[in-house]
Amino acid sequence: MLEARIPKGFRDSMPDDEFHRQNMIETIRKACFLMGYMPIDTPMVEYSEILLGKGGGETDKQVYSFTDPGGRDLSLRYDLTVPLARFVAQHMHALPIPFRRFHVGKVFRGEKPQKGRYREFYQCDWDLIAEASIPGDWEILQSVWFIFQRLQVPDIRIHVSHRSVLPSVLQTLGVTENVAEIMRTIDKRAKIGTDNCAEQLTQYLAEDAVDTMLRLIGSTASSNELLHQLEGILSQEHYDHISSIFSMVEDQAISEHIVFDPGITRGLDYYTGVVFETFLNDFPQLGSVCSGGRYDKLAALYSKHSISGIGASIGLDRLLAGTAELSSQSLGRPSKRVLICNETHEDLMGYQSFLQQLRAHDIASELFPYDTQIKKQFTYAEKAGISFVFRMKDKRHGIIKHLASSASEEIRDLQSLLSFLERYATTT
Amino acid sequence: MLEARIPKGFRDSMPDDEFHRQNMIETIRKACFLMGYMPIDTPMVEYSEILLGKGGGETDKQVYSFTDPGGRDLSLRYDLTVPLARFVAQHMHALPIPFRRFHVGKVFRGEKPQKGRYREFYQCDWDLIAEASIPGDWEILQSVWFIFQRLQVPDIRIHVSHRSVLPSVLQTLGVTENVAEIMRTIDKRAKIGTDNCAEQLTQYLAEDAVDTMLRLIGSTASSNELLHQLEGILSQEHYDHISSIFSMVEDQAISEHIVFDPGITRGLDYYTGVVFETFLNDFPQLGSVCSGGRYDKLAALYSKHSISGIGASIGLDRLLAGTAELSSQSLGRPSKRVLICNETHEDLMGYQSFLQQLRAHDIASELFPYDTQIKKQFTYAEKAGISFVFRMKDKRHGIIKHLASSASEEIRDLQSLLSFLERYATTT
Repeated sequence: MLEARIPKGFRDSMPDDEFHRQNMIETIRKACFLMGYMPIDTPMVEYSEILLGKGGGETDKQVYSFTDPGGRDLSLRYDLTVPLARFVAQHMHALPIPFRRFHVGKVFRGEKPQKGRYREFYQCDWDLIAEASIPGDWEILQSVWFIFQRLQVPDIRIHVSHRSVLPSVLQTLGVTENVAEIMRTIDKRAKIGTDNCAEQLTQYLAEDAVDTMLRLIGSTASSNELLHQLEGILSQEHYDHISSIFSMVEDQAISEHIVFDPGITRGLDYYTGVVFETFLNDFPQLGSVCSGGRYDKLAALYSKHSISGIGASIGLDRLLAGTAELSSQSLGRPSKRVLICNETHEDLMGYQSFLQQLRAHDIASELFPYDTQIKKQFTYAEKAGISFVFRMKDKRHGIIKHLASSASEEIRDLQSLLSFLERYATTT
Repeated sequence: MLEARIPKGFRDSMPDDEFHRQNMIETIRKACFLMGYMPIDTPMVEYSEILLGKGGGETDKQVYSFTDPGGRDLSLRYDLTVPLARFVAQHMHALPIPFRRFHVGKVFRGEKPQKGRYREFYQCDWDLIAEASIPGDWEILQSVWFIFQRLQVPDIRIHVSHRSVLPSVLQTLGVTENVAEIMRTIDKRAKIGTDNCAEQLTQYLAEDAVDTMLRLIGSTASSNELLHQLEGILSQEHYDHISSIFSMVEDQAISEHIVFDPGITRGLDYYTGVVFETFLNDFPQLGSVCSGGRYDKLAALYSKHSISGIGASIGLDRLLAGTAELSSQSLGRPSKRVLICNETHEDLMGYQSFLQQLRAHDIASELFPYDTQIKKQFTYAEKAGISFVFRMKDKRHGIIKHLASSASEEIRDLQSLLSFLERYATTT
């Protein structure tokens, strides 16, 4: 006999968890559709040369590659961004531009598994492919806000910067070398701690300059004060661009939720404009749950057209873990499920018509599939997380019981059953 | 520059297609939940030994296998049934039994690509893991009916048989050898044609016996007449079992939609009881769009517990193709999307508040992300399949236009806009 097991770094998703993941994905999908982001999908498997491009990066070692029976060198996708670039380059003429796409799916990386990190995980991205514009940048920030509202996680803070901010500041300090390394070091500071970050920055910067940088990125000043400090340091174009965005933030009275933060750099090289990360105010130690930014040369490897866009990506697994921790309303087991006890085969049609009525009222309900001791049926309901058990006496009435509270009631019509469920549904 | 392309047998899913696929999946997911089927997920990647079992079958050659950096022999899943068996064996003690699960996801087979067959495709399965019972068998048939109602494809016919039917008939003809081969040959008859089927059956059966078999499986008699013919041929237990199911079909007045068909055998060896296939009455040549049956030893490879259950599987790709062909209501482009033209950056907040109102009324709406010629914005809307374009004059009013009919109207409040959309939404 074989041992039933799965490879290291992979995992099964159990019913309650998967229920929440799918609800979360469905909420995001619906919100994206309302904003004009249409879904697409791409294969899990791509040509290795497409995914690895010029190759030689850190990513390459993490990619699962294989040769198919036709001798093709294929790989499992490791993100949804490279496939988007390939997709846009390949279907350029069929796509409406501006092109708004939503894409959710699994990606694979052969990283060393750690707590909360798996070799197979979800990415959930939406992008606006269009030439750079203030409304476009604003739209993506606004979309993050909109989606988290719909997810019933309204207390977020989106930290926004622009890739030109730190280079401009460094230039005033006379620093023009190692700029990418400095930005990557600053990007890591939440992970490695401010002290280590300062220590590492001394490789590239004088102590004074390190202090200046840390004061700027650690500042608690308001978005407008910070922007004001940077006037004359940023190019006029970038200053106006960021100012326009933050004046809209003020107009919409969400300056608590969208803030200017010069410390946001994003590690990835392909960002060229606005960049952002999103934190839960009640759970900042979770890290960023949604990030993104503007890029200019997405499909440079596959197309002579320059493809500019701005995108956002939700870390679904992290957000699920976070909302579970916050025990937000949106989690917990679905609370209105009903088990109809099976006490005789004779009245199967009676059960059936009852189930149909409940389902027509959007109540998840099921019949225990065979006639066995009633105690076993109750035990099943508890283990399955079903809150209500109904024992039917005849077609017209029966007894409904709420397991958690042991409350029960004799029911003579559907309406009184529905109101019983309503009364007890919040307590699982 | 690299050519943007994907491997043979794989495909991208374009926005309109993916929109319909996801809507279909969401409808099925919701229906399954209402019937107590909770979602699970398993990795795309499993140990090869788990997927291939004893191996040596036709499937093996079609499986994509590779060695991971840790030297593990892994494969991409080729169905959702083997992972279900592994899942149930592995999590036996954590799962409520009866266990109802819904699982939708991609699977991979390195088959020769043909029209409508791809190397990556969706499976969409739900199973009731529980000891065999009449209510359990009935529940699965009923669930197929329920789901197709919800999919707005009510005109289906579920053809039901039992794996004991053909062996029992063959036994009365004195045939006890090559029974599996005979059943597989009969299973293929839609694909190969009745003449070829008859021809191939002569390998195993005398001509008289071939005639008898073909008369039975080609019969146009009613379910009850057919069952009556088989009384005394089937074992009493199986006869009673099938009769009970069809008496419920009659009670529920759906005997047009669930019929007894002794010709249904299902090719796969693991079925042991009731088996079924589902056809669209308006499009029978599409073949079966939903099939399944009862099995007894699902996880025999991984567990000493015998795991019995009954399951159903929708052929999503085929059903999508079929419903597109039937141009069912559920297809076509989403018809109420609105493009707000961008005619000045100045009033971005005005646009914004308008978008918010539309979205709060469940209308998908978007702003063209930069200020460009109005003609280009209209061209974009047409290409993107957006039916309505709105030109805002000021915060209070503007002109809405329905592109397909060129109808337009001056709008002074949200309500008149919504009713305009309502009036024109059916024509895309």
